[in-house]
Amino acid sequence: MPHFANNPAKKSWLEVSKDSDFPIQNIPFGVFITKDDVITIGTRIGDSAIDMGALQQLGYFEGIELTDDMFMQDTLNDFISDGKKTWRQVRNRLSDLFDENNPKLRDNKEHRDIIIFKINEIEMLLPVQIGDYTDFYSSKEHATNVGKMFRDPENALLPNWLHIPVGYHGRSSTIVPSGIPVHRPMGQTLPNGQSTPVFGPSQAIDFELETAFITTDANIMGENIPVNETEDYIFGMVLLNDWSARDMQKWEYVPLGPFLAKNFASSISPWIVTMDALEPFRTKGPKQEPTPLPYLQQKGKHAYDINLEVYIKPENVEETLVSKSNFKYMYWSMSQQLAHHTSNGCRVNSGDMMGSGTISGPTEDSYGSMLELTWSGKNPIKMKDGSERKFINDNDTVIMKGYCQNSSVRIGFGEVSSKLLPPFVRK
Amino acid sequence: MPHFANNPAKKSWLEVSKDSDFPIQNIPFGVFITKDDVITIGTRIGDSAIDMGALQQLGYFEGIELTDDMFMQDTLNDFISDGKKTWRQVRNRLSDLFDENNPKLRDNKEHRDIIIFKINEIEMLLPVQIGDYTDFYSSKEHATNVGKMFRDPENALLPNWLHIPVGYHGRSSTIVPSGIPVHRPMGQTLPNGQSTPVFGPSQAIDFELETAFITTDANIMGENIPVNETEDYIFGMVLLNDWSARDMQKWEYVPLGPFLAKNFASSISPWIVTMDALEPFRTKGPKQEPTPLPYLQQKGKHAYDINLEVYIKPENVEETLVSKSNFKYMYWSMSQQLAHHTSNGCRVNSGDMMGSGTISGPTEDSYGSMLELTWSGKNPIKMKDGSERKFINDNDTVIMKGYCQNSSVRIGFGEVSSKLLPPFVRK
Repeated sequence: MPHFANNPAKKSWLEVSKDSDFPIQNIPFGVFITKDDVITIGTRIGDSAIDMGALQQLGYFEGIELTDDMFMQDTLNDFISDGKKTWRQVRNRLSDLFDENNPKLRDNKEHRDIIIFKINEIEMLLPVQIGDYTDFYSSKEHATNVGKMFRDPENALLPNWLHIPVGYHGRSSTIVPSGIPVHRPMGQTLPNGQSTPVFGPSQAIDFELETAFITTDANIMGENIPVNETEDYIFGMVLLNDWSARDMQKWEYVPLGPFLAKNFASSISPWIVTMDALEPFRTKGPKQEPTPLPYLQQKGKHAYDINLEVYIKPENVEETLVSKSNFKYMYWSMSQQLAHHTSNGCRVNSGDMMGSGTISGPTEDSYGSMLELTWSGKNPIKMKDGSERKFINDNDTVIMKGYCQNSSVRIGFGEVSSKLLPPFVRK
Repeated sequence: MPHFANNPAKKSWLEVSKDSDFPIQNIPFGVFITKDDVITIGTRIGDSAIDMGALQQLGYFEGIELTDDMFMQDTLNDFISDGKKTWRQVRNRLSDLFDENNPKLRDNKEHRDIIIFKINEIEMLLPVQIGDYTDFYSSKEHATNVGKMFRDPENALLPNWLHIPVGYHGRSSTIVPSGIPVHRPMGQTLPNGQSTPVFGPSQAIDFELETAFITTDANIMGENIPVNETEDYIFGMVLLNDWSARDMQKWEYVPLGPFLAKNFASSISPWIVTMDALEPFRTKGPKQEPTPLPYLQQKGKHAYDINLEVYIKPENVEETLVSKSNFKYMYWSMSQQLAHHTSNGCRVNSGDMMGSGTISGPTEDSYGSMLELTWSGKNPIKMKDGSERKFINDNDTVIMKGYCQNSSVRIGFGEVSSKLLPPFVRK
């Protein structure tokens, strides 16, 4: 059923530029506010934002079992909760409606004027209310780099790493969509060589290049999701910049893990790209050696070939590409992460978000954080105005992009872009 | 203003036994479902549950600015969001309405029949929708005990512990109210002396004796709450059993902290006792040495004298008291925890929950976990049927109680009671 909407030969009557992340084969889902202050669920084709609330009111989803106001909501949670069959029916309907050969909406100017907005006329909001946010640590290259820098270069990976998709809980209340600026946090740090900590602005603000998947209601409390059933519960993916304050992290993280070094902000791209749209880009993940325990074993292709890029743009200066990575490098798959997460009966709800962890590739230019790219500040990165960066400066904007590309189609995420502001000053 | 409702001479026209946790000076808030399947916000006096939705419909909150359906909701989040002034007005109104000298409701049988239920006729639900759950680690005795057992007996406390109210994020989706049984989780562990992990039921299920506070909307993202303003944002407290699987915890927790060892379940007492009701039991906390950094410094009394007890009740066997502790032993105050949590600009919302961490006292019978009480299994505890416990057995019920008591009044939490079931079996 998804293949109908994935047909690479399909074209839309809406204009789509050749390098757009959003051809008619994508059909991502998001929430936006229109210039008339109406909040709606919508999708995007090319540079057109499509008001799905209006589409529903005008009868364009007839025949699909949906509650009356399904798309006139400010989050996708209820839609996601309806399950995979409904997601596919809606995506296929949109694919059909915007097909260049379908005159129904194409030739109805009155309806088009109600339904379609230019992308720069709307503002994207958070697509889901995130009940719980989990962040994994599933890139072997990243875990190895961090282990080399902070622990033992000879035994960089901790003993559990090859057996467990290591993860921890993050903060939901500070997840913001692309475009929302983030303040440099204040915090406790222990200056090098000193024995008492100080409190002040973090001096080591970093990005973490990640993706995240959004789940649907998966289980009742106590029940696990077998690894081979997990894909039924993954709605789609976004890009995630998991902002980190390295100096605060170093001081606070024992023994319970990172806390204030992470929970000041996490930024995501606003369009959720469905797993159906990403289907053509499945690929084999890295070989897992030793073989995982049976509850984590899976056959087939469970990695995805998603190109990832990070740019830093100082104020009034052109951006510099600082990292080129790929989601396919991840050691643990999203299926394994979800199977592990629920293996103890932990309940997973519609709209929960699970981050991949920093995605570092095998080469030095594919690392997913400044910590690794500059090797803890030893090798600063040059910007286009000649200035150097060990970490992120005030008023720098960090931009992450992600896209899949084969000979016939490009499916992308757009971007997550956020500016780092100086510390907040109370008025 | 709170002192009006705290007057120890006050009596209710509702029956209250001498040892009740819920005299008219308490007036806690909760959510329950009646025998007629109506969900409402309510309070409790003695063994009577009071339907505040019905009270509001019948006009008993007239004069207090409240939205029309404020108490006909299934969570307290909106009420808590209204702020301290409203909490106090409502608590004082209830105190007045149920005062033995007030005939208004006392002498209106028709209204009484609609409003008042016997406590065993209703079922308590979760009182709030918990957006984010944070757990601290603020008992010095607990942190020291754990450090002695697992790290270095000579340097039991980690270097950051005396400077930071160490905390981490927990899982909201598996917080359940008292009475809901919990399944023993499956998980990965590394058997002693072996180098490869196994997967199976945890063999070391523990309770953690904690309290937790519930917040109101505190700040916008980026802004901090100064330590001396934090009390405006704490609505009240509950008892918390932070279930833990020690064998899973030991294997998984480096470097990002506990995850599946904790997130299978956390149980809370269902009535939120307000900070106003606890006011007479303020006391001085332990001396903090070294002096905390300025953003954590506070004057006055910020601890609370709350007696805490833990019982284990094997099936068909009388319960055994296994721990007697007190909340006043906590090294870091709730104010310091909240000031620290927001010091980096982390947003705190209405209904967020922040746990104290395991509350261990100075003596061996006041430790807040089986891990400490049995000193990692070396000193098992005897039950009334002669059986021994190193950790919690299947079908044991763990019961935690909490109450404040002075010469004139007792303010209590009731209990959080939950049974440990065998591992979940998929049907």
